[in-house]
Amino acid sequence: MAALNVALIGQGFMGKAHSNAYAQVGHFFPELRKVRRKVVCGRNRERLAAFAKTWEWEQVETDWRRIVERDDIDIVDICTPNALHAEMAVAAAEAGKMALCEKPAANSAVEAAAMAEAAKGVPNMVWFNYRRVPAVELARQLVHEGKLGRIFQYRAAYLQEWGNDFTRPAAWRLSKAAAGSGANGDLNSHLIDTAMMMLGPIREVSATMETFFDEKPDPSRPGETYPVDVDDTVLTQARFANGTLATFEATRFAVGVRNANRFEIHGEKGMLRFDLEELNRLHYVDASAEKRLQGTNTIMVTGPDHPYAAKIWRPGHLLGYEHTFIAALADFLAGLESGEPAQPTLDDALQVQRVLDAIEISAHERRWVETGL
Amino acid sequence: MAALNVALIGQGFMGKAHSNAYAQVGHFFPELRKVRRKVVCGRNRERLAAFAKTWEWEQVETDWRRIVERDDIDIVDICTPNALHAEMAVAAAEAGKMALCEKPAANSAVEAAAMAEAAKGVPNMVWFNYRRVPAVELARQLVHEGKLGRIFQYRAAYLQEWGNDFTRPAAWRLSKAAAGSGANGDLNSHLIDTAMMMLGPIREVSATMETFFDEKPDPSRPGETYPVDVDDTVLTQARFANGTLATFEATRFAVGVRNANRFEIHGEKGMLRFDLEELNRLHYVDASAEKRLQGTNTIMVTGPDHPYAAKIWRPGHLLGYEHTFIAALADFLAGLESGEPAQPTLDDALQVQRVLDAIEISAHERRWVETGL
Amino acid sequence: MAALNVALIGQGFMGKAHSNAYAQVGHFFPELRKVRRKVVCGRNRERLAAFAKTWEWEQVETDWRRIVERDDIDIVDICTPNALHAEMAVAAAEAGKMALCEKPAANSAVEAAAMAEAAKGVPNMVWFNYRRVPAVELARQLVHEGKLGRIFQYRAAYLQEWGNDFTRPAAWRLSKAAAGSGANGDLNSHLIDTAMMMLGPIREVSATMETFFDEKPDPSRPGETYPVDVDDTVLTQARFANGTLATFEATRFAVGVRNANRFEIHGEKGMLRFDLEELNRLHYVDASAEKRLQGTNTIMVTGPDHPYAAKIWRPGHLLGYEHTFIAALADFLAGLESGEPAQPTLDDALQVQRVLDAIEISAHERRWVETGL
Amino acid sequence: MAALNVALIGQGFMGKAHSNAYAQVGHFFPELRKVRRKVVCGRNRERLAAFAKTWEWEQVETDWRRIVERDDIDIVDICTPNALHAEMAVAAAEAGKMALCEKPAANSAVEAAAMAEAAKGVPNMVWFNYRRVPAVELARQLVHEGKLGRIFQYRAAYLQEWGNDFTRPAAWRLSKAAAGSGANGDLNSHLIDTAMMMLGPIREVSATMETFFDEKPDPSRPGETYPVDVDDTVLTQARFANGTLATFEATRFAVGVRNANRFEIHGEKGMLRFDLEELNRLHYVDASAEKRLQGTNTIMVTGPDHPYAAKIWRPGHLLGYEHTFIAALADFLAGLESGEPAQPTLDDALQVQRVLDAIEISAHERRWVETGL
Repeated sequence: MAALNVALIGQGFMGKAHSNAYAQVGHFFPELRKVRRKVVCGRNRERLAAFAKTWEWEQVETDWRRIVERDDIDIVDICTPNALHAEMAVAAAEAGKMALCEKPAANSAVEAAAMAEAAKGVPNMVWFNYRRVPAVELARQLVHEGKLGRIFQYRAAYLQEWGNDFTRPAAWRLSKAAAGSGANGDLNSHLIDTAMMMLGPIREVSATMETFFDEKPDPSRPGETYPVDVDDTVLTQARFANGTLATFEATRFAVGVRNANRFEIHGEKGMLRFDLEELNRLHYVDASAEKRLQGTNTIMVTGPDHPYAAKIWRPGHLLGYEHTFIAALADFLAGLESGEPAQPTLDDALQVQRVLDAIEISAHERRWVETGL
Repeated sequence: MAALNVALIGQGFMGKAHSNAYAQVGHFFPELRKVRRKVVCGRNRERLAAFAKTWEWEQVETDWRRIVERDDIDIVDICTPNALHAEMAVAAAEAGKMALCEKPAANSAVEAAAMAEAAKGVPNMVWFNYRRVPAVELARQLVHEGKLGRIFQYRAAYLQEWGNDFTRPAAWRLSKAAAGSGANGDLNSHLIDTAMMMLGPIREVSATMETFFDEKPDPSRPGETYPVDVDDTVLTQARFANGTLATFEATRFAVGVRNANRFEIHGEKGMLRFDLEELNRLHYVDASAEKRLQGTNTIMVTGPDHPYAAKIWRPGHLLGYEHTFIAALADFLAGLESGEPAQPTLDDALQVQRVLDAIEISAHERRWVETGL
Repeated sequence: MAALNVALIGQGFMGKAHSNAYAQVGHFFPELRKVRRKVVCGRNRERLAAFAKTWEWEQVETDWRRIVERDDIDIVDICTPNALHAEMAVAAAEAGKMALCEKPAANSAVEAAAMAEAAKGVPNMVWFNYRRVPAVELARQLVHEGKLGRIFQYRAAYLQEWGNDFTRPAAWRLSKAAAGSGANGDLNSHLIDTAMMMLGPIREVSATMETFFDEKPDPSRPGETYPVDVDDTVLTQARFANGTLATFEATRFAVGVRNANRFEIHGEKGMLRFDLEELNRLHYVDASAEKRLQGTNTIMVTGPDHPYAAKIWRPGHLLGYEHTFIAALADFLAGLESGEPAQPTLDDALQVQRVLDAIEISAHERRWVETGL
Repeated sequence: MAALNVALIGQGFMGKAHSNAYAQVGHFFPELRKVRRKVVCGRNRERLAAFAKTWEWEQVETDWRRIVERDDIDIVDICTPNALHAEMAVAAAEAGKMALCEKPAANSAVEAAAMAEAAKGVPNMVWFNYRRVPAVELARQLVHEGKLGRIFQYRAAYLQEWGNDFTRPAAWRLSKAAAGSGANGDLNSHLIDTAMMMLGPIREVSATMETFFDEKPDPSRPGETYPVDVDDTVLTQARFANGTLATFEATRFAVGVRNANRFEIHGEKGMLRFDLEELNRLHYVDASAEKRLQGTNTIMVTGPDHPYAAKIWRPGHLLGYEHTFIAALADFLAGLESGEPAQPTLDDALQVQRVLDAIEISAHERRWVETGL
């Protein structure tokens, strides 16, 4: 079968992570359909040329509309600032392209709904890559197998610290117009996606948002500042439709923490704990085990019996960050063949967006808000 | 100086922990005034005799009012179910006794206020023993020295799992009449006390409470159940008067966790992290350290430069649970001599109670509530 | 039954730890025969008076021979520098006293043999207290139950760092005349005792010893030094009589480590790992568990199903260093009643001494040496 | 500059790891000279075709001698069983090819010396990939900067468990003819290489070797066994030329451990600790820090100030196993440009081999053996 021609829009950090996935997926999943790095699209022509050379994209393009119009493109992959996702994804889908999109799907549920609607007829996926951490997928399996029984509480936090770094230049992630939100769309969206993958829809939320600094010094313009109009932190209490309680905390001001994406799940039969800062491990308590030997079991999720890992290296040979993208892409390609689309689709991501929207309303109105899910 | 005669009311787990403190304080703090285990008071006469013999109390008493009336009692120490605290503490204080009381001070701020008022003229303390974990006291010092600078967020959780154990007989801790509340008074009170010790008063709260099982089988009466009318879990968002955001989670249904009393504090200059399940350690990030060497510094708080530890064993020789009570008592005794009362007094505990009350109101009314602090 | 009258010889750190055990054993093990802190013996009369007052010893004595001669003493407990152990223990035993002795039993196997011989007719025990860490005792049970199957390798290390502290005054532990050896008797003896408790006698050893500084500045005599003629570190390869291989490392120059007493045991069916710096935990790998869920199980050894812990506090309420001594004493007292003497007796300690002697010979002669066990 | 044409010999696990490095090096180190996956050489033609397709090698070859003879090959990279290294490396070097070789360099120092001699005129490197773990390289820098001062002791262990897996088919790694040794060449070689990178040459060794099972059932031939004539475990005491003491333990029977490559280094000014099972972290104790705050500092070595990591992802975004090979290759390519050859060269690897040989002699003769270094 012919390779799928990919057009990538965006050349930032996600552009790099996705490029790597396209370059690597065939090495670890050789049985899947091949992908071809056909064209990368970006506005800074100089950087684009270097990027394309480094990552071996065959062509470059500065106008994203042109790649949508091309007949030889099978997949359009969107890695731009969030505000651009909707228009691009809709256009790609309407042109019959498979649509891949970085998370969060969009700046609002309205946009996300339009994307999901437009993409009904085409394969699509949103890159909530942390679903593909082998330990997270193993946790999902255990929850769905009923290993924890009824779930009492779900606790998650996504902690980063770069908000407190005043040497960084202004960036789209700190602008509401470009990013839609701050920690909510950037970090909380991961927590919500993983949580709903585990336990189903979230029914209602009560949230608090905070922007610690309304403006920051711009190191690229000495003496000047730039405005920050997005949330630096967002705290959420929630209840799933199944009744389980949850807390979520997403922040860019967790000084002392690099990239901690954590969850703890307490069920009547046991517990699961994960932290992205030790991504190769899952902690599991089997509360039905012999009391004398009951403890916190730290599983190194790198073995042949574990999700994804068998395809990569060997037991105890750690996987890194990039494998979450490679595995997501592999799942997408496998879904094309099996007819069972890889999740999360734009439909799934729309549900996440609805929760994010409810969180924002809740924070502004200081009350519980239903998500409609 | 003559030893202080102590009367202990209560012979449960706290009675044991306090008895141990009275027995041990002179061994590790020989410079302080001596305490004498004069009389222990409880209602079950048979158990009381055994308790007194084991813990070397000179006398036993089944009517607590009688010990308040005695001239030879200096300290009345209250370890009964919460509902009894207020009456006992007030009576003791009015009789001119020094009043020590287990946490939480009372079932409500109203009760706690009466206690604080009555005790104005006598030395008093509430046993929020976890303030005396050397690592917690070291954290307090670092925060108060400004080592973290402005604090952005405070995150705490007190997690236990015994709520999910259906082999336990009915207990006063599950009865609103006896305990006032469930996880809120029992566990959340510790979190709130520690938090306000660190960062000052909490101004407002938004909380959720849940009782997972309204009734439970009573193993001591096969086929019967007993009602549970207190909260099993309580989730809180809060804001301190100084503006810092906080989250608290207290639960008895954290299956997989034994006794985790945790906090993480993120400030502009660094982070502190603690968990009671590793009580000899404090984790500290100095965000101003050389980047290449910046990390999470795990301090084993057992050395001569650390709070309390110098009086006990040697560096690397771990301290256990009971030393929190011994150190609290030592601080109380030292306060008698210095004239600077050990904290938390009933006044401090009243503030905690105000926050607990606001949390309960917030949970029931599903809205933010001001604490009045 | 009348309480047992104890005479303690020594008022140093071990004197303190033992005094605490005598004070506390009845509180946690009330069913056992009582012990009475009758007399403490030491040479510095002034310090002795203070020590006796703090730890509530009824009497003081400066001549140890006199306490051996007294009719009212049941137990003689020896906490002096090692060189004095043999004479005291032999005298005590010959006077019909129960003989307790700090580790190592003596400065040589010859001395230890004399002690064991003299004590044949009296209850006796050597305080290798780390046998009584609940996690260590649990490990022993698991090994003896065959949970690990055939053991391939045993790896242990006892690491301290105080050797590198040049602010400490001269001490008997650095003198061969007083201590017999350095790290070998002080630290390695613990490793060897625990190892042989687990796996039986050690047959042969190959060792290296090193003294990093032959003399050190004496802070109590500015400009002066004091000699060091004992080993700072000792490295050992060994083979048990059952064929299992082992390595031991004991050092006072493990800068960066406070008090790490570790072992790892690899057997055909699993692994056990322990470190005294987290004394409440045992790590266990069950190599026969379902592969997908196989991991390192961290057991918090504080529950009712665990050794000793049920008598102390509650699950998740950590035990500290002193409980190793309390439990050792409890085992000794229980052995008096059951007729099954608590281990290690002076006979057991003699075996340890034989291994220590062989290690010393091996290090000096740079060859494998048989222990004779 | 034209890309360097690579010929890879071997299609096993190392062939895969090296192929990945060739595919990826340009993505993360785009400034370096390009490499081209020209030809892969192996004996199993069918597997080779699949391997070449998966890893995008342009050509396949079954006779390694032919690739040495080709004019268009710049680099010959040897990933075969150890016994074949010497002949191949000598032939490649004599043909003027750059010679890269998996570790250990050879089956003996004699072979390694021949290889080093032959390769004097060509760029060469041995893939001791764990030198390139960012945390290991950071440790090396700290040691070489004198951050630890005088080093007292070095302790290392490489622990794997697959030796105890009796479901594996016979393999060259268990054959002395093919592998030269077992754990010694396979695992101990890594420990020795890292140790000498840190502290210079090892002067003498005292070692023990053990083969736990002389023969094993061959799952591919039911009822049959295959012989094992290499060491399963090797225990070493050593002294560096600088006087520092060391212990090394390498084993394939560390049941319960997947892939633990650990070291601990104690110096007068501090400590370093590393374990490959948490490859993104380095533990550092600065013994000169303020006592109250002195602890074990866990550095997540993923930041822009850290070796290699700045080229890969972002702080807190973990690196995996494969990056050790990518970085090794990058260093080799950078060395070509700078004229400062990347280490370890065949000369360095020869030193490792001398230590391995001395260890083997020591184990057989049960005595200390000098390495000649």
